[in-house]
Amino acid sequence: MKKYNFSAGPSTLPEEVIQQASQAVLDFNNKGISLIEISHRSKDFIAIMDEARALAKKLMKLDDNHEVLYLQGGASLQFSMVPYNLLKSKAAYVDSGNFASMAIKEAEKIGKIEIIASSKQDKYTYIPKDYAVPSDADYLHITSNNTVYGTEIKTFPNTNIPIVCDMSSDILSRNINYNKFAILYAGAQKNLGPAGVTMVVVDKTLLGTTGRNLPSYLDYEVHLAKDSMANTPPVFAVYTTLLNLRWLDKQGGPEGIEKKNKEKAELLYNEIDRNPLFRGICVKEDRSLMNVCFFLNDEEKHKAIFDQMCKDANIVGVGGYRTVGGYRASIYNAMPLEGVQVLVNVMKELEKTHN
Amino acid sequence: MKKYNFSAGPSTLPEEVIQQASQAVLDFNNKGISLIEISHRSKDFIAIMDEARALAKKLMKLDDNHEVLYLQGGASLQFSMVPYNLLKSKAAYVDSGNFASMAIKEAEKIGKIEIIASSKQDKYTYIPKDYAVPSDADYLHITSNNTVYGTEIKTFPNTNIPIVCDMSSDILSRNINYNKFAILYAGAQKNLGPAGVTMVVVDKTLLGTTGRNLPSYLDYEVHLAKDSMANTPPVFAVYTTLLNLRWLDKQGGPEGIEKKNKEKAELLYNEIDRNPLFRGICVKEDRSLMNVCFFLNDEEKHKAIFDQMCKDANIVGVGGYRTVGGYRASIYNAMPLEGVQVLVNVMKELEKTHN
Repeated sequence: MKKYNFSAGPSTLPEEVIQQASQAVLDFNNKGISLIEISHRSKDFIAIMDEARALAKKLMKLDDNHEVLYLQGGASLQFSMVPYNLLKSKAAYVDSGNFASMAIKEAEKIGKIEIIASSKQDKYTYIPKDYAVPSDADYLHITSNNTVYGTEIKTFPNTNIPIVCDMSSDILSRNINYNKFAILYAGAQKNLGPAGVTMVVVDKTLLGTTGRNLPSYLDYEVHLAKDSMANTPPVFAVYTTLLNLRWLDKQGGPEGIEKKNKEKAELLYNEIDRNPLFRGICVKEDRSLMNVCFFLNDEEKHKAIFDQMCKDANIVGVGGYRTVGGYRASIYNAMPLEGVQVLVNVMKELEKTHN
Repeated sequence: MKKYNFSAGPSTLPEEVIQQASQAVLDFNNKGISLIEISHRSKDFIAIMDEARALAKKLMKLDDNHEVLYLQGGASLQFSMVPYNLLKSKAAYVDSGNFASMAIKEAEKIGKIEIIASSKQDKYTYIPKDYAVPSDADYLHITSNNTVYGTEIKTFPNTNIPIVCDMSSDILSRNINYNKFAILYAGAQKNLGPAGVTMVVVDKTLLGTTGRNLPSYLDYEVHLAKDSMANTPPVFAVYTTLLNLRWLDKQGGPEGIEKKNKEKAELLYNEIDRNPLFRGICVKEDRSLMNVCFFLNDEEKHKAIFDQMCKDANIVGVGGYRTVGGYRASIYNAMPLEGVQVLVNVMKELEKTHN
């Protein structure tokens, strides 16, 4: 029985991607050898990596200054690699959530950080806006979507300072100007593929100015020079990400998927706002299209029942983040409208039978 | 048609591991959800990670001071993490090959390194021995098996200085005292599993003395405190490594597999030494049980024919490393004796038909 998987990451992937990835592990392109046994120096894998880079560039409509890397270590390692590669005198950070705050902690180990805006005092229920970016900052670091709290930047700041963006939970979910960013990075396990690979988009023209003699693995220029093959790449994760990018291309790319994502989010938020048993968590204008966070108004009365009803409907992964509680439905690209409808039906059913 | 895959890494894996990994990607334990869709915070994945750590400890007979980590970034990132976590005043390195020399280059960015022995002058055709380890070194770094050249340490040095070992290409291939090491690390894609995860064994009692405020991802203590789940682990690679460890356990662990590995290596080296068309590359006493490197005596006359005969016999991945040339048959744990016999038969056939 297929489950509706609302987990925040690792998370649901398209059925065809799962099937193709499974088949490739068994036997890659009828070659009598598994995907995970082929050499990363083989023609077969080089073609995979080349296509994964090229298709990501095409989908994001990246210009020639921007290049795509597939690295290991997750967004967590990017929290350090960004300042190592860009920070000279000072960097400006916006504290919009859990991961933004972790990015700040890691950057502070490397250089001078100025937190120019924060919604921490209000439990991260909104996206800080209307802040001034110091003109002497080497870069501005923002987080486009806050997985834990369910907020998302709708309008990116206008500034001449290079913008670095942690886009782990909403990359390629909508049609934005991806060339706007000096660096953007995303752990694959939310909207790109399986855990184990991180996509990093870098504006090559901004690198090589800090004077640091970095460990090779932490140096974007090392990875750029070797097309993400400076060492053995995570073969399975890169290939499965490629399968997912091909699927996304067939959905009409960022334009096509944005339309579907908006439809899904609207369906769910409308029910949260309509149903007297539930309430949203964040300010409406900053609501995420990816992570829909909500509370039951009366947990004591309805939590056990609602949880059981979700289980009976094959819904998994809707529990809220441990520090927030409540519910979080992650409706990334691969979640079909049907899955959201099933959840909405359960919410309606709870109202009908237990209000 | 199944291939005999002699690639140096990523490399051949047991057939049952391939089948189980493929099935788990399709549907994990009949749960209606793929392995790569489950949350890393789920009971299912925590059980995978716990077993992967415990089984590695059991197979290596590790004492309570040692713990097993599953990290990202490959051995390449370990080249930097080792000195970041252990180097205070000086570290001693043995330069026994390509990867040893890369480890030295990375460590030199972080602190004072003394190269106490090297076989570089002789094209790395032997393992340096009988060196003195400086008594004031924080650690001694060695490479147990040199994939590129086909040499392997048979007797580990006796010293009071903590030993750090890059064991990427022969970990768990033989029955040694794994507690001897302060740190050992291994990219999984040779003897442990698929590319995308690195096993690191650390003696916990030696950490936390450098005073460095490290980036979290580079700090062993951060990963130890969170049982390798400080951030999202590479789920597929960890699970497939666990499958491979279970397979190894059924082979009788390091003791059982060592017997088989010796049998395979003997079969192939005997043919190289016997067959007048071939010759070995390295000194006999240091020959690797894992990577068997050899040359044709007359490449011009026999290379094209031998390559075609290998292809016809479904042999892949026997080309030597690009800077060495010749041939390299990687006969890791998962290569069956039958595969080595097929290669030996082709060598005999070449002698019979073209000598």
